[in-house]
Amino acid sequence: MSKKIVSGHGSGGKMMNDMIENIIKKILGPESIQLDDSAILSIGNETIAFTTDNFTISPIFFPGGDIGKLAVNGTVNDIAVMGARPLFLSCGIIMEEGFEIDLLQSILQSMKRAADYAKVKIVTGDTKVVQKGNADKIFINTTGIGLIENNIQRLPIEVGDRIVINGEIGDHGIAVMAERNKLSFSEELYSDCSPLNHLIAKIIESYPRSIKFMRDPTRGGVASVLNDIVKNRFFSMKLFEDELPIKKEVNGVCDLLGIDPLYVANEGKVILITKEEDTDAIVELMRTIKEGVSAKVIGIITDEFTGKAYIETPIGGKRILPILIEEQLPRIC
Amino acid sequence: MSKKIVSGHGSGGKMMNDMIENIIKKILGPESIQLDDSAILSIGNETIAFTTDNFTISPIFFPGGDIGKLAVNGTVNDIAVMGARPLFLSCGIIMEEGFEIDLLQSILQSMKRAADYAKVKIVTGDTKVVQKGNADKIFINTTGIGLIENNIQRLPIEVGDRIVINGEIGDHGIAVMAERNKLSFSEELYSDCSPLNHLIAKIIESYPRSIKFMRDPTRGGVASVLNDIVKNRFFSMKLFEDELPIKKEVNGVCDLLGIDPLYVANEGKVILITKEEDTDAIVELMRTIKEGVSAKVIGIITDEFTGKAYIETPIGGKRILPILIEEQLPRIC
Repeated sequence: MSKKIVSGHGSGGKMMNDMIENIIKKILGPESIQLDDSAILSIGNETIAFTTDNFTISPIFFPGGDIGKLAVNGTVNDIAVMGARPLFLSCGIIMEEGFEIDLLQSILQSMKRAADYAKVKIVTGDTKVVQKGNADKIFINTTGIGLIENNIQRLPIEVGDRIVINGEIGDHGIAVMAERNKLSFSEELYSDCSPLNHLIAKIIESYPRSIKFMRDPTRGGVASVLNDIVKNRFFSMKLFEDELPIKKEVNGVCDLLGIDPLYVANEGKVILITKEEDTDAIVELMRTIKEGVSAKVIGIITDEFTGKAYIETPIGGKRILPILIEEQLPRIC
Repeated sequence: MSKKIVSGHGSGGKMMNDMIENIIKKILGPESIQLDDSAILSIGNETIAFTTDNFTISPIFFPGGDIGKLAVNGTVNDIAVMGARPLFLSCGIIMEEGFEIDLLQSILQSMKRAADYAKVKIVTGDTKVVQKGNADKIFINTTGIGLIENNIQRLPIEVGDRIVINGEIGDHGIAVMAERNKLSFSEELYSDCSPLNHLIAKIIESYPRSIKFMRDPTRGGVASVLNDIVKNRFFSMKLFEDELPIKKEVNGVCDLLGIDPLYVANEGKVILITKEEDTDAIVELMRTIKEGVSAKVIGIITDEFTGKAYIETPIGGKRILPILIEEQLPRIC
């Protein structure tokens, strides 16, 4: 029996990682898919970050954004978390026949606004049209180049280092899911879709030796990023349950859908591992920047277990965060 | 009435160019879509070429190649014709659920072979899965970076310059079309899908000041490239009808479908405008390289008209090549 692709292969969870390891990397070679968000490359005398993302989100317009804004910010963020300054984006569009030109214009305007705000340029593009029913409205690929100006020296992660996030968890995935399923709320939920490069540049500028790790928790959510960091390591990550910033509406929808917000995609969040002694100052600095106003410490590196991410409740209970097998929320990016 | 996207918007013809000019460039800015095949960018102290392409070809396997080989060579060629050395590619895959993993493996193997042959590295990727019926099997985006090592000084095109092509015209589009429509031939037709970078590097190395223009005639074919060059210029391009290298099978299918092979996509061809006095030597050099063995002169720059591309028959008849409005062969790349 020939095996077939299922939705879990695009999930950000274990099924996807297995496909990357056992099929893609085996064929294209180990350098083809880096676990980091961008490839780091030497080109002439410069060092650049290079990253690609397809956006197939449904619906294409959602509270707080649309596929265009998401495509720009998603790629900007994958570059920024590598410590690079995002400079240039390409934009590859696939549309089905019958797609409304008005909607295309809205999406392009949104891309332009997002690019201007992030201070990146969209410099090249490609457009393909397929027959109706051969694509779902519009898919966008953005591929980006960033310049690494200061080599950040990433010191090794140690027990006592802190886990910092710049704001609330799970808004993007839940806002998209609520829109898709026409759930209604007293207070509306919005995607956190936003660029992280200005925030990250400020942190790196002020604390170049205090950031041990950065990653944007998109597909697979916060828990998957933490599990990636601790995999095969001799330390663990403890999250303080009552410090986790999660909106009650997000928790409400998660309860309804039977999912955990820690596995839900974010599109304007960054997780930092910071040196213990500089953590307070970093959080304070982050709070002076729009994308970091709600920054806070959510956890600590421990040696209580090895290679696990876990939550500690206020009364000392512990719950290990399992490795995600397949995404609960398809097509949220 | 809201206007809708039709297949012509992805055609490589006038409808697509109008959309690029009137919608995409107006919104994203003039630098967003360059008429050349790649954007030329300064990054730190280096100059690079940066280009993106979506591949939505149907069928995904065809005589002479598949979507994977095409995705690598197409992007390699867009970089090479800018005079840059292709170095790195990204690979963004969108698949529908149910796509056979065996086929994915074949396509990836084909990408790897093509990348190795072209001496480029696939360094980063992304995979998305959509529900069955929301994509047609598999779409691939490749985005590439090339380094410009020697600034080619492109001298202005003058009357008397020659038009050179490295081989036969229309094979790719017709091979794909024949496969799609299950046409059968006594002799099989194969796509010309191949990388042009080794050929172009050799030409530039030996004749850095003799190449006035290079472009790969993909969507829209040879005639569209020539029309692009002469648009609003004070010279014309004359093609010698009996010098045009077109296989009799290609002509046969074109007659059957009522299309002109000069408007059919090629995927391993380059059109050069060469300085008159160096043309013979350039053609001779090209013939020593695999991708150039059938190189020949097909035309000349004249001042007989202004801004036209036209064919001269052996008995002196002239036929102007009109600007393509919409593609006759959708989804050939």
